[in-house]
Amino acid sequence: MGYDKSDELAINTIRVLAIDATIKSNSGHPGAPMGMAPVAHVLWKKFMTFNPKNPDWLNRDRFVLSNGHACMLQYTMLHLYKYAISMDDMKTFRQVDSILPGHPEAHDTPGIEVTTGPLGQGFANAVGLAIAQAHTGAVFNKPGFELVNNHTYMFFGDGCAMEGIASEAASTAGHLKLGNLIAIYDDNHISIDGDTKCAFTEDVSKRFEAYGWHVQHVEDGDHDLEGIEKAIQKAKDVTDKPSMIKLTTTIGFGSKLQGTGGVHGNPLKKDDAAQVKEKFGFDPEKSFVVPQEVYDSYAEHAAKGAAAEEEWNKLFEKYSSEHKTEAADLKRRLSKKLPEGWQEKLPIYSPKDPAIASRKLSETVLEKIHDVIPELLSGSADLTGSNNTRWKQAVDFQPPDLGIGEWSGRYLRYGVREHSMAGIMNGISAYGTLIPAGGTFLNFVSYAAGAVRLSSLSHQRVIYVATHDSIGLGEDGPTHQPIETLAHFRALPNMMVWRPADGNECSAAYYVALTSTGTPSILALTRQNLPQLEGSTIEKASKGGYVALEDKEAKITLVSTGSEVSICLEAVKYLAEHHQLKARVVSMPCTEVFDAQSKEYKLSVIPDGIASLSVEVMSTLGWEKYSHEQFGLNRFGASGPYLEVYKKFEFTPEGISKRAKATVEFWADVKPLRSPVNRAFQQLI
Amino acid sequence: MGYDKSDELAINTIRVLAIDATIKSNSGHPGAPMGMAPVAHVLWKKFMTFNPKNPDWLNRDRFVLSNGHACMLQYTMLHLYKYAISMDDMKTFRQVDSILPGHPEAHDTPGIEVTTGPLGQGFANAVGLAIAQAHTGAVFNKPGFELVNNHTYMFFGDGCAMEGIASEAASTAGHLKLGNLIAIYDDNHISIDGDTKCAFTEDVSKRFEAYGWHVQHVEDGDHDLEGIEKAIQKAKDVTDKPSMIKLTTTIGFGSKLQGTGGVHGNPLKKDDAAQVKEKFGFDPEKSFVVPQEVYDSYAEHAAKGAAAEEEWNKLFEKYSSEHKTEAADLKRRLSKKLPEGWQEKLPIYSPKDPAIASRKLSETVLEKIHDVIPELLSGSADLTGSNNTRWKQAVDFQPPDLGIGEWSGRYLRYGVREHSMAGIMNGISAYGTLIPAGGTFLNFVSYAAGAVRLSSLSHQRVIYVATHDSIGLGEDGPTHQPIETLAHFRALPNMMVWRPADGNECSAAYYVALTSTGTPSILALTRQNLPQLEGSTIEKASKGGYVALEDKEAKITLVSTGSEVSICLEAVKYLAEHHQLKARVVSMPCTEVFDAQSKEYKLSVIPDGIASLSVEVMSTLGWEKYSHEQFGLNRFGASGPYLEVYKKFEFTPEGISKRAKATVEFWADVKPLRSPVNRAFQQLI
Repeated sequence: MGYDKSDELAINTIRVLAIDATIKSNSGHPGAPMGMAPVAHVLWKKFMTFNPKNPDWLNRDRFVLSNGHACMLQYTMLHLYKYAISMDDMKTFRQVDSILPGHPEAHDTPGIEVTTGPLGQGFANAVGLAIAQAHTGAVFNKPGFELVNNHTYMFFGDGCAMEGIASEAASTAGHLKLGNLIAIYDDNHISIDGDTKCAFTEDVSKRFEAYGWHVQHVEDGDHDLEGIEKAIQKAKDVTDKPSMIKLTTTIGFGSKLQGTGGVHGNPLKKDDAAQVKEKFGFDPEKSFVVPQEVYDSYAEHAAKGAAAEEEWNKLFEKYSSEHKTEAADLKRRLSKKLPEGWQEKLPIYSPKDPAIASRKLSETVLEKIHDVIPELLSGSADLTGSNNTRWKQAVDFQPPDLGIGEWSGRYLRYGVREHSMAGIMNGISAYGTLIPAGGTFLNFVSYAAGAVRLSSLSHQRVIYVATHDSIGLGEDGPTHQPIETLAHFRALPNMMVWRPADGNECSAAYYVALTSTGTPSILALTRQNLPQLEGSTIEKASKGGYVALEDKEAKITLVSTGSEVSICLEAVKYLAEHHQLKARVVSMPCTEVFDAQSKEYKLSVIPDGIASLSVEVMSTLGWEKYSHEQFGLNRFGASGPYLEVYKKFEFTPEGISKRAKATVEFWADVKPLRSPVNRAFQQLI
Repeated sequence: MGYDKSDELAINTIRVLAIDATIKSNSGHPGAPMGMAPVAHVLWKKFMTFNPKNPDWLNRDRFVLSNGHACMLQYTMLHLYKYAISMDDMKTFRQVDSILPGHPEAHDTPGIEVTTGPLGQGFANAVGLAIAQAHTGAVFNKPGFELVNNHTYMFFGDGCAMEGIASEAASTAGHLKLGNLIAIYDDNHISIDGDTKCAFTEDVSKRFEAYGWHVQHVEDGDHDLEGIEKAIQKAKDVTDKPSMIKLTTTIGFGSKLQGTGGVHGNPLKKDDAAQVKEKFGFDPEKSFVVPQEVYDSYAEHAAKGAAAEEEWNKLFEKYSSEHKTEAADLKRRLSKKLPEGWQEKLPIYSPKDPAIASRKLSETVLEKIHDVIPELLSGSADLTGSNNTRWKQAVDFQPPDLGIGEWSGRYLRYGVREHSMAGIMNGISAYGTLIPAGGTFLNFVSYAAGAVRLSSLSHQRVIYVATHDSIGLGEDGPTHQPIETLAHFRALPNMMVWRPADGNECSAAYYVALTSTGTPSILALTRQNLPQLEGSTIEKASKGGYVALEDKEAKITLVSTGSEVSICLEAVKYLAEHHQLKARVVSMPCTEVFDAQSKEYKLSVIPDGIASLSVEVMSTLGWEKYSHEQFGLNRFGASGPYLEVYKKFEFTPEGISKRAKATVEFWADVKPLRSPVNRAFQQLI
């Protein structure tokens, strides 16, 4: 407690820097940084423990700016605390190749934990970070070794509060009693459409209470630094509930337009900026000025953080001698490397093995690897029995007092909340000690699209276990049968979409997903049984595409994925018998991984000189890249037993053969017949 | 009031039919129908007004089953009330080509208002239906003519209650004080993962109170028919708030597995079905039996509904003579036809007109047409000033007592709630008197993907005004720049994705969107200015793709959309000057509409014998369908002024020319060189 002029100076410095940076970039959001400068000052200086020289220190407190458009606030705090963001960097805000992009990106900027801006995402990420802390603490802390006990602090605004993903995540956090999570709600009554009274008149505090949160209100967030401090302290003291502090602030505090939408998303006018500076005792003629005493005062706190890390390092050294296995495990996890030899556990199949649904094959993988990969944290959005995401011995991650799990549990019940599941998984992954896998139906990964996109953009190793992957789910019908979904996520950069055809391919999908430390994966898995293929191996499938059936005299290549590969193999027989046509089959479980192979390899799989037909029971969009003609489903599916549905749409050996024949005939006159993977130029990546 | 054995018999008939149908199909969800049979009986018989012989009667009460997996409940009610669903139909539940698919589909089944099953969607649809009623009543009701005053009743379960879209929609409904909306929450404590206590322990009632809803609790939903009736009556009496009735029920009531997850998603075992039937006084040996007195008793109520419609028709006849204009307008709206000559209002541009951002062009269209198309209801998910969705004279749709709008207002503030905006728009469209248009950034249409998919599947004429459509949005950066979005929605069946290149194309997009009564549209619009093209007309652009610049000696066709078309036109000059290469340009504002043209036309646009290159600043996925080579962006974008960003990724005349040259050279030796639109066989549609 005890705030004075120096605090005011620091707060106003934050405000003025936000003004300068947005004016310089002629773009950005000064309003929220100006309104939240006081709470940022109090939170970082009085509560947060961190070492700017090592933003990766495990036990640092995490800070998430869910209202990511206010990023100049976060960049400013990082700059003032001397993270590796220079004043020159500050001047490049929102310019091409700057380390300070328009919204915070975890991958680009030191000190940014998660990628935010798309509203509500940071809220879910913070819940994930808090879950990961609770779990990691439960696993690694020992008597006398409180290794992992950090807090997660999160700011969110009215926009986040309106987004469904934040509602979902808040309900989950309340259920899980995450006492290590403290959220500060910037109650400034302004969103882009102006006063929130035009669309958002609910009682947010009461809603959070309904979720089981501890809720407080600080009425004067512009000035009441002591009130802010008291509220945060109280929130820390409540350890059996997440805390929400409603902080009423004035957006754009100090501006002539303060308290209005005018200051939300546009730089201040010059004269307005000048009057703010004058009012705050800054030279209106100068920009990007930080009084030395602000740096000094923050440096003092940063030094405490550095000392805290040093203490922690000593503690960890001692821990390493007393708890060798745990220490080695923790170190390994943080390196993102999997345990030596883990892949020996991946199941291998031969054609003699029975037909098994790939969702069951996935379950077997989890069953086999969960004890050698202790960082694997599985879960489902209320489809556990359908997604097969839970190994038999799994313990639920739950607050122990509910009597149905433990903090150290490795199975998360996300509820019917796909979007927040994905956002929470991004947060869990960002914590650094866990690899989250979460299940839903492939069709409902679309509900989570906003967060899935950020898995990719922020390079998180998360695994989406997406079962019931096609019309093959049968009776649930068109509302549940994906058509556009694979095309959607194949078009998403830095995402691997796997659709394994059998057991070996399923093992390959997990192998590549788990060893790709900066790329998320979607595993599209069947409800229906699939036979084990003759030509599949983990190694071959790990290339993304391979020849499942070779025939040097083939007149056509059938390129297929998942449940259609075995039908294509049947079609080869049908073609030979009924059309005297020889065919070869390519299985392409993951186009993105195939794309990354050498041109030589790709052309060996889909060669020049031979026509090709893709076969997949959903949208053909994108298959032109790997085939001359496409057989798919560019309409919605049908409700019925799955074999009937396949028959209706002609996904049978006969239906495939008919189209294969048409393809061969149509392309017979073209010379040279280029492989579709033989291209004129490389794409930018 | 006053319930007796005949009510019990009806309720048990509903239960037994749900058991029989799911056993016959060997698939489906008997649990919720068995648990909710009492409330369905009371609601339909005591409160709902409808005429089974005319499911389209405007003033019918609307019923939405948000927990759509319980559809056998709804199908059973429709059958018992003698909608056009026969007992033979009931036996085809979940079979291919049945009118009773696995989840309710508005387009397929008489009496189904909206397509549900994906959880939470029906909740948002019901809010949309209630909005449409409030608006339509305000516009058309006159003293002595209470033409439109129906209620919307909705059932939802724990799954819906967990979904973010329902939370968003509930907040909106509370803000809008929709007294005509009554939601009944099936509080049965069971979801697919078992007891909801594993993931869902919040206080749902308190949450709804926080949203501003009137909340009640009926504790014994299995037996307390009078309590149910009283609660619904009270909910009707509260006219200034939406109502939520928490109804505690026993899932699978009557089964040996009642109250457990075992009865949620699987048909009952034979012996269990037999004991239920015996207990309820039915012959365990027989299936699909309806006691005649149940039919009779329901027929009595249906007759009242038919009489009510007859009364209404008389009222409308009188209305037609006293309020001719309004009556004609209402009739026309219900026919889905737009007013004669409305298209004359669409703005036409010539190359002399200034460069304008397509989001502004869209605003101009709305400005010009809003008074000739009174059924157009615009709105935005809190991006009004950015989406340019509001015409100057627009009045907000708001409860009048807020003082910021009227029930008759035609501008909806959806808040930062993209998913529920889309779900609400589906409901508004389903009501029959309005065409909803709603804005957000293109990137955040992905947040709404679950509902957008249902716009397509349920044939709703809704328009997504999706601005800031590419890296051209500039400084907001990769978190906001769509890459995968157009591919995603182009892969979605029955969806038109428009990306207009100039003013005429923007008018064409609106023309086709508004006249396609069973297909939704996404209009992808720029933030940055676009010049008016030389070769564009509304007529040409209405074909989805056309030749924007012809050259009979061209060696290459550049196929492009939106903001890249004018850069391609510049590239033509650059190619001539620097590479002595002649090029032609195709503008392809909507691939789906282009696909629907004759093969002859398509080949005139993208002819055989000439190489082609697509140019679009996002994922190339799918462009192989219209071009031999693709120039796009298969990575995330960058934050910076948009021209800098375009330059970084080489979307300049020079960058395009380089790739055009490579394309021509690469394909020079292929004979015959087929147009990519020249295909071996037709796709199933």
